[in-house]
Amino acid sequence: MAVGEDVLPALSPVHGVRLAAVSAGIKTVGRRDLVLIELAAGGNCAAVFTQNDFCAAPVLVARAHLSESGFNTRYLLINTGNANAGTGEDGIAAARACTEAVAHLADSDCNTVLPFSTGVIGEPLPTALICAAVPAAYAALGEDGWVDAAWGILTTDTRPKGSSVQFSYAGRDYVVTGIAKGAGMIRPNMATMLAYLATDAAVERSVLQDILGAAVETSFNRITIDGDTSTNDACVLLASGLAGNEMLDDKESGLGIALRSAVDQVCLELAQGLIRDGEGATKFVTVQVNGGHSEQECLAVAFTIAHSPLVKTALFASDPNWGRLLAAIGRAGLRELAVDLIDIYINNVLIARNGCRAATYTEEQGVAAMAPEDIVIRIELNRGRSEAALWTSDLSYDYVRINAEYRT
Amino acid sequence: MAVGEDVLPALSPVHGVRLAAVSAGIKTVGRRDLVLIELAAGGNCAAVFTQNDFCAAPVLVARAHLSESGFNTRYLLINTGNANAGTGEDGIAAARACTEAVAHLADSDCNTVLPFSTGVIGEPLPTALICAAVPAAYAALGEDGWVDAAWGILTTDTRPKGSSVQFSYAGRDYVVTGIAKGAGMIRPNMATMLAYLATDAAVERSVLQDILGAAVETSFNRITIDGDTSTNDACVLLASGLAGNEMLDDKESGLGIALRSAVDQVCLELAQGLIRDGEGATKFVTVQVNGGHSEQECLAVAFTIAHSPLVKTALFASDPNWGRLLAAIGRAGLRELAVDLIDIYINNVLIARNGCRAATYTEEQGVAAMAPEDIVIRIELNRGRSEAALWTSDLSYDYVRINAEYRT
Repeated sequence: MAVGEDVLPALSPVHGVRLAAVSAGIKTVGRRDLVLIELAAGGNCAAVFTQNDFCAAPVLVARAHLSESGFNTRYLLINTGNANAGTGEDGIAAARACTEAVAHLADSDCNTVLPFSTGVIGEPLPTALICAAVPAAYAALGEDGWVDAAWGILTTDTRPKGSSVQFSYAGRDYVVTGIAKGAGMIRPNMATMLAYLATDAAVERSVLQDILGAAVETSFNRITIDGDTSTNDACVLLASGLAGNEMLDDKESGLGIALRSAVDQVCLELAQGLIRDGEGATKFVTVQVNGGHSEQECLAVAFTIAHSPLVKTALFASDPNWGRLLAAIGRAGLRELAVDLIDIYINNVLIARNGCRAATYTEEQGVAAMAPEDIVIRIELNRGRSEAALWTSDLSYDYVRINAEYRT
Repeated sequence: MAVGEDVLPALSPVHGVRLAAVSAGIKTVGRRDLVLIELAAGGNCAAVFTQNDFCAAPVLVARAHLSESGFNTRYLLINTGNANAGTGEDGIAAARACTEAVAHLADSDCNTVLPFSTGVIGEPLPTALICAAVPAAYAALGEDGWVDAAWGILTTDTRPKGSSVQFSYAGRDYVVTGIAKGAGMIRPNMATMLAYLATDAAVERSVLQDILGAAVETSFNRITIDGDTSTNDACVLLASGLAGNEMLDDKESGLGIALRSAVDQVCLELAQGLIRDGEGATKFVTVQVNGGHSEQECLAVAFTIAHSPLVKTALFASDPNWGRLLAAIGRAGLRELAVDLIDIYINNVLIARNGCRAATYTEEQGVAAMAPEDIVIRIELNRGRSEAALWTSDLSYDYVRINAEYRT
């Protein structure tokens, strides 16, 4: 199940970035489960990783390789079907072995290769299968490989997620293209989510990292399906530098602003795409909280609503059960919350005013407001000027089915 | 669905406490939905209420009445089918009107009557129906009314919950009896849970409050079904004083210790009964976390596990998916968590050791360990001497069905 149309937009190639997806037979024979991404020499790389204390082996190895190589990254190797998490020293050796297989073919140092894994936790990584499939992936690399790669990184996702933005600045054309996977276990701090973006702009490394960090904060860190956080999350932004611009070293420059806008847009489209394909999702829900003392307290209210199983089951039932919203707001932990100031809107229908059912509200209005697939829940706290939004899905039978059946 | 046998234990009458349950026709004609409990004059009362900022009107009125009367409580009036929450000033007036109906019959002040409501949020309380049914409840009051009352306070519960403990001290016999309702929306801080306990011991009011507060902390505040917290929770302990003892004014005295033990036991049995009857529950799960630096961090780990939809769906599937446990521990927010010290046991089978799959572990062991209805998940953090336990249920299709269908 998923929300909205299943249309993968056209993904513009990024000069200097080549991709391939092949089948290594990790879990299902014939399914593409291994993706290789190559960045041309001289490019730059930025990355953010899971904040779960139980980092998977590939996350530990990727971080170490970035540090050892001084962020000189040439290859990203991504497998599905096995997370290589909870696997201890053996898992680290396995992740290293996979990077060595790539480095050997490319005649590069293994610390220029970053490993990524997603899938079942706690099973040994089938290193031999992966290493055996690396040559085929290497041979298939091409700048037109984005769609194949978007398919190749999926696990329980029902559709590939991709986004592409082209822009011009000072007479030069640029592109930002990205793909992502992840359908459950998604919440702030990057949960079982893998996302790979690339641009052809030439960007200084620390600027690239700032641009990625800021974009992630308002996209992938503002979505939640079930509040669970993965051991394996990663988001990478590659910059090939082949657009021909002078190295971008100021994110506040004209090109910096244009590039940030493009990266923000790609990240947001990918993040919202993850929610639309959330496990068992039948609704795409925007939770907008306005009028707080701080963005932090707006987010506290928004996440409490987005994580409430009672709110999520009411969304599944298209039931305008605003009492559950009210109860969630009340337990969000805000200091000195004046509940009699709060207004609640669902798709712009005023449901509750001053903490009570609005005088103008009728159940028919509520039912009509809850009917669409896309729902905007708007909370007006009316106590300050800050605001925040996040995106989530509902809690359906299919969510339970998918997570009860997965792995067994 | 519910876990374990549906057997309501014998509930011993408490001398000086009379109860009745009648049908006021609030939601379903003929269903008992109104309970009245009377405490003999001269008794004492202690109470704890929801910590949700959106308190329901009856909670506000009950608190005000306790304060106005100096905790001189004679009657508890409980209705189901309507929570009288999110109802503003009208709701407060409605709750007051119901207490006046009781006070009028009993020739008492209305601040000696405490109102309690549970059910749908945001609908006007049908005051006229309730007031019309009060005389029948008043006329039916009897010391043998505990079982009727246990049935009368239920909402989506599938079975009544009650517990009774008798004990002797210094040649005198005492009893503590309690009933509770609540099947969803339950987590710490007293969520849509109503519980009423009574003893015949004579207990000074502040001591009674201390005994209740301590018992609630390790019972009702240590259970969670879905992490949601209600607007209406309340737990009341009445002490009629008719056992004949000298007024208990020291909880560390011999009688104090014996009474605390009895109240603790009744609260724990009621709390665990709520979990066994949790919405859609097919498992009764104890989460035991040992070896933490503090009880607080053990609870942080335990609640993160208990609230994880991925852990809960794996429990529903009887799937020994310890990777999800590991991922939940990793996002519990502990400072400087050494993941390679952590051991995980399910029903005493060592599943993970030092943060990885245990060498001795086989999938067959895990499947066998997960098969029973009663599951103990034990986490050994191996970094300190503190420990904590809590109780939860799984996340099943029926949980979604119940909460998607309720109210629509």
